[in-house]
Amino acid sequence: MTLHEIGQLLGCGENGDMREIHGMNTLRDASSKEISFLSDSRYEKELINTKASAVILPASKAHLLPEGVIALVSEEPYMAVAVLSKYFTKPIQSSTKAPIIGEGTQIYPTAHVENGASIGKNCTIMSGVYIGAESVIGDDVILYPNVVVYRDCVIGNRVVVHSGSVIGSDGFGYAHTKTGEHVKLYQNGNVVIEDDVEIGANTTVDCAVFGSTFIKRGTKIDNLVQIGHNCVVGEHSIMVSQSGLAGSTTLGRNVVMGGQSATAGHLSIAPFTTLAARSGVTKSITQKGVYSGFPLMEHKLWLKMQAKLAKILES
Amino acid sequence: MTLHEIGQLLGCGENGDMREIHGMNTLRDASSKEISFLSDSRYEKELINTKASAVILPASKAHLLPEGVIALVSEEPYMAVAVLSKYFTKPIQSSTKAPIIGEGTQIYPTAHVENGASIGKNCTIMSGVYIGAESVIGDDVILYPNVVVYRDCVIGNRVVVHSGSVIGSDGFGYAHTKTGEHVKLYQNGNVVIEDDVEIGANTTVDCAVFGSTFIKRGTKIDNLVQIGHNCVVGEHSIMVSQSGLAGSTTLGRNVVMGGQSATAGHLSIAPFTTLAARSGVTKSITQKGVYSGFPLMEHKLWLKMQAKLAKILES
Amino acid sequence: MTLHEIGQLLGCGENGDMREIHGMNTLRDASSKEISFLSDSRYEKELINTKASAVILPASKAHLLPEGVIALVSEEPYMAVAVLSKYFTKPIQSSTKAPIIGEGTQIYPTAHVENGASIGKNCTIMSGVYIGAESVIGDDVILYPNVVVYRDCVIGNRVVVHSGSVIGSDGFGYAHTKTGEHVKLYQNGNVVIEDDVEIGANTTVDCAVFGSTFIKRGTKIDNLVQIGHNCVVGEHSIMVSQSGLAGSTTLGRNVVMGGQSATAGHLSIAPFTTLAARSGVTKSITQKGVYSGFPLMEHKLWLKMQAKLAKILES
Repeated sequence: MTLHEIGQLLGCGENGDMREIHGMNTLRDASSKEISFLSDSRYEKELINTKASAVILPASKAHLLPEGVIALVSEEPYMAVAVLSKYFTKPIQSSTKAPIIGEGTQIYPTAHVENGASIGKNCTIMSGVYIGAESVIGDDVILYPNVVVYRDCVIGNRVVVHSGSVIGSDGFGYAHTKTGEHVKLYQNGNVVIEDDVEIGANTTVDCAVFGSTFIKRGTKIDNLVQIGHNCVVGEHSIMVSQSGLAGSTTLGRNVVMGGQSATAGHLSIAPFTTLAARSGVTKSITQKGVYSGFPLMEHKLWLKMQAKLAKILES
Repeated sequence: MTLHEIGQLLGCGENGDMREIHGMNTLRDASSKEISFLSDSRYEKELINTKASAVILPASKAHLLPEGVIALVSEEPYMAVAVLSKYFTKPIQSSTKAPIIGEGTQIYPTAHVENGASIGKNCTIMSGVYIGAESVIGDDVILYPNVVVYRDCVIGNRVVVHSGSVIGSDGFGYAHTKTGEHVKLYQNGNVVIEDDVEIGANTTVDCAVFGSTFIKRGTKIDNLVQIGHNCVVGEHSIMVSQSGLAGSTTLGRNVVMGGQSATAGHLSIAPFTTLAARSGVTKSITQKGVYSGFPLMEHKLWLKMQAKLAKILES
Repeated sequence: MTLHEIGQLLGCGENGDMREIHGMNTLRDASSKEISFLSDSRYEKELINTKASAVILPASKAHLLPEGVIALVSEEPYMAVAVLSKYFTKPIQSSTKAPIIGEGTQIYPTAHVENGASIGKNCTIMSGVYIGAESVIGDDVILYPNVVVYRDCVIGNRVVVHSGSVIGSDGFGYAHTKTGEHVKLYQNGNVVIEDDVEIGANTTVDCAVFGSTFIKRGTKIDNLVQIGHNCVVGEHSIMVSQSGLAGSTTLGRNVVMGGQSATAGHLSIAPFTTLAARSGVTKSITQKGVYSGFPLMEHKLWLKMQAKLAKILES
């Protein structure tokens, strides 16, 4: 697809640029063969350094682009990105290369490994497991029955994933029309799970829109946990059952999330923070500590609040 | 099973009516070959118009039946329905007709499609998927690995269901004996998913007791969401991860349910309502707006409440 | 592995005892061929009666051991147990005995039954189901598509498990190093599900560390429920969707847990207790009743509290 064709598709007018575009990416990560976008003014300062060949953005921001980068002007850039994302999404199957299977790896007969995938040594890939195209699995990995790994994911060494968990399903992202319909933002990123991570049963980890959702080294995740697209879960963190992370939230190392706790999206949680069971986080946490409640507060304050409420109840 | 036999089974006495009964249904939807029931006085006004051949109901309501409709008198009608439901439940396999598969549809070798099912054109039915008897799948549908569709379900065109989600599992319904045992109400309905719906990973949508659970056109549902039996999710609604709907609740069009929010059963939520993350709905909502908290209140009031509580904490 | 080797492995010094040890267990349940431990002073009183050959415990408690029981002294006994648990964990496959399948049982071709498992009469084991080594399934059981039963589990008669549910996945247990890494406590127990239990879709029931997680007779569990390791769910209990039990909690008979409710670990809930939707239990409940809220209180008090809060809001 050429830049010219993209301009026409998005109704941004004729630009006559016949360069072939290979993909979409963020302002920060786009290469000169990719197209990028500005749909959230928080990222405006990244315009100046982008290496993208073209950027979808509102007219009022076009003057901020570096020389040579083409402006694809749209007053609804997020919708334009959604519309375009469909053209760059990768198919479920895209390789004719038989999967590479390491020595000592056992694959049950009802597991399905797509072409282009690669599995390391001494793994156990149990019945009903699915491993998507171009995924890379390390050594000594156990995928229990019916685990699903979508395409392009990367799983480190000694990772264990329990039954029914889904790694790399599409993030939940849509642009909305004025009449209330939802246009899918195709998710072109992946999930990267580092060494020594263990994931419980029926947990879901969504792939990134662009780039990667990360589960870092040594982290342990319980059953029925939700991790949204583009999250980063720091090293040696703990997520207890039924907790959830909305998209693009970053946990520092050794964060503990209690059962049924959750965070909003686009937050950053300081390393060594503990979030009590049921806590709900709506703002970033910069100071490590123990937090409770919804709205969230320091656990000490939450206890004080409960004591005050108990008095009100008696009054 | 004749009406006479049903009367005997339920201990309602001899009625001598040898008509063959083919099923059970609600007062509103029962045909003259079906039996119905009154177990909840809210539905009393539907007695007068029922076309059922017979109705299970308490003695005190028998006089409300239209002429020609037989009363099967029971002081525990819900228990009688549960006992009887077992006799009308459909078996897992019930057809010898090979499934119909549309042109251009790819079915992975470990997928299992029951006899009597029908799949449209250009679908992708991935590994480990199960499609139950008499289910009807539209065109251009993607069922990711290990999706399960129980029998009799209907899935529209361009629907996408991510890995591990379960469509049409039994609703959670039991009658309770006086000694505390639970008697299963067999779920004889289905799930209908309309066009352009997308459902995330490891989500569950229960089938209806009678009739259908509906997910209407264009609705998008995230991971780990629960939708109870007989719910109706309106067009272009959004349900974020870990949210839940108890049985028989209806969402209007373009309702947004935030993460971990939930509703009780038998409610009706006005179109264009937004329920904030973690909100819990226990009464029907007739006015669109943004609501928060548990108990639920307008979001503006919830913010005011939090400000008041913060002051109490400081005092 | 001899006691001598274990002592060396754990850095407890040389004990020269060449007895072969076959496993690990709790103080109460350990046999003379097993090793036990004291990592929680609540169990101190069980030292005197233990039949274990040796006990891992702090120096200060060693004098409490019965004569003949060897002390393996460790100031971090829980970490020592975690380190040792790896050596006693059972492999995924451990039998060459073909599974025993009862008369009238139907097993779909893509189901996988490990050697050493046994399935009773008239069961339906659907597509994608996995049944682990040495598991024992009763008569008239239905396992819907993609249910997973880990090794050593026991499932009674007339049990129904809906699609995607996972029985016997590893409990969430780790010892923590001083530098914040997590050392897995291998889970060597199982899950026992008694007769007439029904479990919904995508629910998870973890196996016990030692001994069994129990779901007792007649209990009904909805979709997306979490049951932690070593829990006991009493007879005829009800757990509604998205509720959760942390590890080692015991529900008495006929407990009802509403949607999204949860308990902390190591609690005991009185028979016939009802926990309202969203309630969160952090202390044991000794008096049956209806409870709500988080922190939990009697439902009557919770209603009063909401009335008081409403007044504050108006003020």
